[in-house]
Amino acid sequence: MAISFTVVAQCPVTKARAGVLTTPHGQINTPVFMPVGTLGTVKAMTPEELAEINAQIVLANTYHLYLRPGHELVAEAGGLHRFMNWQRPILTDSGGFQVFSLGDMTKIDADGVVFRSHLDGSSHYFTPEKVMEIEAALGADIIMAFDQCPPWPSSREFVEQAVERTTRWARRCKEAQLNPSRQALFGIMQGGSFPDLRRRSAEALVEMDFPGYAIGGLSVGEPKEVMYAVLSQCVDFLPADKPRYLMGVGSEDYLLTGVWFGVDMFDCVLPTRIARNGTAMTSQGRVTVRNSAYARDFGPLDPNCSCSVCANYSRAYIRHLVKSNEILGHRLLTYHNLYYLLKLMEGARQAIIEGNFVQYYRRHLPLEEVDKYFNREE
Amino acid sequence: MAISFTVVAQCPVTKARAGVLTTPHGQINTPVFMPVGTLGTVKAMTPEELAEINAQIVLANTYHLYLRPGHELVAEAGGLHRFMNWQRPILTDSGGFQVFSLGDMTKIDADGVVFRSHLDGSSHYFTPEKVMEIEAALGADIIMAFDQCPPWPSSREFVEQAVERTTRWARRCKEAQLNPSRQALFGIMQGGSFPDLRRRSAEALVEMDFPGYAIGGLSVGEPKEVMYAVLSQCVDFLPADKPRYLMGVGSEDYLLTGVWFGVDMFDCVLPTRIARNGTAMTSQGRVTVRNSAYARDFGPLDPNCSCSVCANYSRAYIRHLVKSNEILGHRLLTYHNLYYLLKLMEGARQAIIEGNFVQYYRRHLPLEEVDKYFNREE
Repeated sequence: MAISFTVVAQCPVTKARAGVLTTPHGQINTPVFMPVGTLGTVKAMTPEELAEINAQIVLANTYHLYLRPGHELVAEAGGLHRFMNWQRPILTDSGGFQVFSLGDMTKIDADGVVFRSHLDGSSHYFTPEKVMEIEAALGADIIMAFDQCPPWPSSREFVEQAVERTTRWARRCKEAQLNPSRQALFGIMQGGSFPDLRRRSAEALVEMDFPGYAIGGLSVGEPKEVMYAVLSQCVDFLPADKPRYLMGVGSEDYLLTGVWFGVDMFDCVLPTRIARNGTAMTSQGRVTVRNSAYARDFGPLDPNCSCSVCANYSRAYIRHLVKSNEILGHRLLTYHNLYYLLKLMEGARQAIIEGNFVQYYRRHLPLEEVDKYFNREE
Repeated sequence: MAISFTVVAQCPVTKARAGVLTTPHGQINTPVFMPVGTLGTVKAMTPEELAEINAQIVLANTYHLYLRPGHELVAEAGGLHRFMNWQRPILTDSGGFQVFSLGDMTKIDADGVVFRSHLDGSSHYFTPEKVMEIEAALGADIIMAFDQCPPWPSSREFVEQAVERTTRWARRCKEAQLNPSRQALFGIMQGGSFPDLRRRSAEALVEMDFPGYAIGGLSVGEPKEVMYAVLSQCVDFLPADKPRYLMGVGSEDYLLTGVWFGVDMFDCVLPTRIARNGTAMTSQGRVTVRNSAYARDFGPLDPNCSCSVCANYSRAYIRHLVKSNEILGHRLLTYHNLYYLLKLMEGARQAIIEGNFVQYYRRHLPLEEVDKYFNREE
């Protein structure tokens, strides 16, 4: 087995848990936020900086790396770890989400998806077997099965078909996987907002016995209440002794609530993307330093943050950089936002271990966020 | 006096010399290349990285900082050093070059220049007194007098007028300077390619006794032969005991030849600008990693370079980043190019001290570059 997972602490009130996920490139303390490095680089950051802020694992995108520079080239370079100079764990998604959302003129059949590159319009065909070949070439520690992620809203019929297709493709991925001893293949649950379809999807995957499971098809535009309602139920369909990964989630409220519901892993472009738009995540909420209100604010992005950006640079300077479209502005905001989210998750883990996760949650969010989805017995 | 300058070694063959320039923010070993941080940031670099590669002083642009974020704001922030988090020396130019080259609809009169901002078309008026006020607010260690830099080619009459105006303005700058004990004001020699005008400009400035002198009006599009011919003469018009600064020069050949002719200080956007266009400066010449020839080149940018980029990243990876317009591509190339140029200059200084500068020059450039301008007695 490529990975092993141990739950080291369980919150007595919520479903939150702290774990250790062991991979070929080292251990990951969960719950964990995974910065996204779409093209083999977390935008604006070096791997050294990622290590400095204690990023434990990064995500890279199969669809993007397949198109540019190509998975064979990455394999020639010695795999993605070596290519991008990152020796800690990597997770690659399967491209399922991207071929449907980015590819033009997608045609889906029983075997896979024909799509056109968003770069040059060239035509490509992804099957479960092809995706396994690409992910093997990239060489990540954790690889994702090829799935169909329905947009929101979708009809029950459409979601049901997507669940069935995703189940068949998951089985084919498992059979086609090239390096099971060095790469852990995760199955992806679909089912939209239909509890019985979520259950059906989960049960079929669990029967195939994957080393980990992802919850897909959430954070695709549905209201927060729908997301929380689905999440509060569908985590229970997954085995407690395997890591659970909620895809595409990176806001403070979704992360902490995901942890509350028992999720171990998260990824999202949010912290890095809003950084490039001039927005900082802080203990006092979002701060859009681009705004003129900060032109003469010589204090740090977040007075409660201990990162090197907050120690050395003012909101006024960072605003000046952002307004001038200077790369350093993107760098400083990206560094701070990732530091902030990684610290948030480290704090959540520590709170779980110390048995005070509910208090930790309450310090960041109102309990009403989760109350209706959860019978607390405080 | 804000600065002091000592020549510590003189090449026995050429006019090259090694010096130490002491400023309020520390010592600078010359000859020195000064990375350009136009808007208070050397594009794509942090101050920590600049210190890591041993940048001794950076340049910032008065015209740009005056327009954005405004010199009063920088003063409120505690000056440019504090604003940009750089505690080593800073030099600010005077904006003379920019108002003529970037400003639209420039109108020049005896007192100064009316120009329109390249950002929003707003109208502004720079006089020697105004420029001294702005440079005092920015708080650099070395500040430049307001000059008129004629384009190349220009008529003798035009250049003569520019010399006269530059001389008058230099005197007014000296009289208007606000902090002579904390900021060293350098005069700028003009005179185009006319040796007698260069001499006239230099003599007038030297009579005013500036703590340092710049050679302006070169590297503005003239052929290399013109540049070298002017340079080989006009350095002699400047006193040996004061630092000499050749403005706007950053290619390997111009730098080493400038050192040969007795120049101590240089600045240019070249290494950082070509980095962002995907080109590396290397011991084997320029390497445009953007080119497809490097798609599968898994070696470093420069096999003879000991920088952290060359230790950790391949040409293929950097090409991938550049092609994908990833910030990290700009970062890695900028870091390497500055490292390369700073090492080149450190090597030149060491060679001068060890008495083998001509050999050092020959290792990098053909001696024919300088032979016709210089009677060597090897």
